Amino acid sequence: MMNLADNSTICFEPIGYVQNDIDQPVSSSVIRERTSHIVIKKELVEGLQGLEPGQEILVIFHFHRAPENNPLMQHPRGDRNQPLRGVFALRSPHRPNAIGVTVVDLVTVEKNVLKVQGLDAINQTPVLDIKPV
Amino acid sequence: MMNLADNSTICFEPIGYVQNDIDQPVSSSVIRERTSHIVIKKELVEGLQGLEPGQEILVIFHFHRAPENNPLMQHPRGDRNQPLRGVFALRSPHRPNAIGVTVVDLVTVEKNVLKVQGLDAINQTPVLDIKPV
Repeated sequence: MMNLADNSTICFEPIGYVQNDIDQPVSSSVIRERTSHIVIKKELVEGLQGLEPGQEILVIFHFHRAPENNPLMQHPRGDRNQPLRGVFALRSPHRPNAIGVTVVDLVTVEKNVLKVQGLDAINQTPVLDIKPV
Repeated sequence: MMNLADNSTICFEPIGYVQNDIDQPVSSSVIRERTSHIVIKKELVEGLQGLEPGQEILVIFHFHRAPENNPLMQHPRGDRNQPLRGVFALRSPHRPNAIGVTVVDLVTVEKNVLKVQGLDAINQTPVLDIKPV
């Protein structure tokens, strides 16, 4: 039996950042319509080899503007007409760990810059990982 | 233009831990066949409300046994007969940020314990987040 009191903190450094024209949090349906760029750190560019335009990729990112200490029960999409649900049954950015995971379409890859469609992350969002779907 | 030299570290605390009978890293196809339990910290149990047996959930976890400083080009599944690919075009656990994301079947939810099928994470893996698919 492991010790569930173990609060060992796990730390990551961004592999890159999102660039788009949305500087403030808005609803994810609005952001998803936009084209975004993911600028990967130059020293990691070799890791992009094999990613092909047209494929779907998983982008794992940090909701860096989300508040801390969020309630565990929330209204879906902030809609008070909807009954409260647990945060792990929601995609809300207001979660114990502010991690976002979104499947996006990879439009182009040019050097260390990925152009993607469907990313619900605002400008300057730190990106933690990219994986093939 | 943001400053890409910004290495601001992002830290998380596990929301819980995996329990299964696999204590050493093995191939993900072997682990996926097993049933695992995800033991969520008791203080977060309210966040599970609304998760239903039979649904698929996304489990985001830390490959806590993966080495650091991995090569950016790797052979798929460690198979040297396969040409090298960039790590962001692979699901390898040996990545710049050791984050795993897997879709699993939720079998049961009992208090703070989720029983799941299809999780490719070994015993005591720290879980960072759970989301509906």
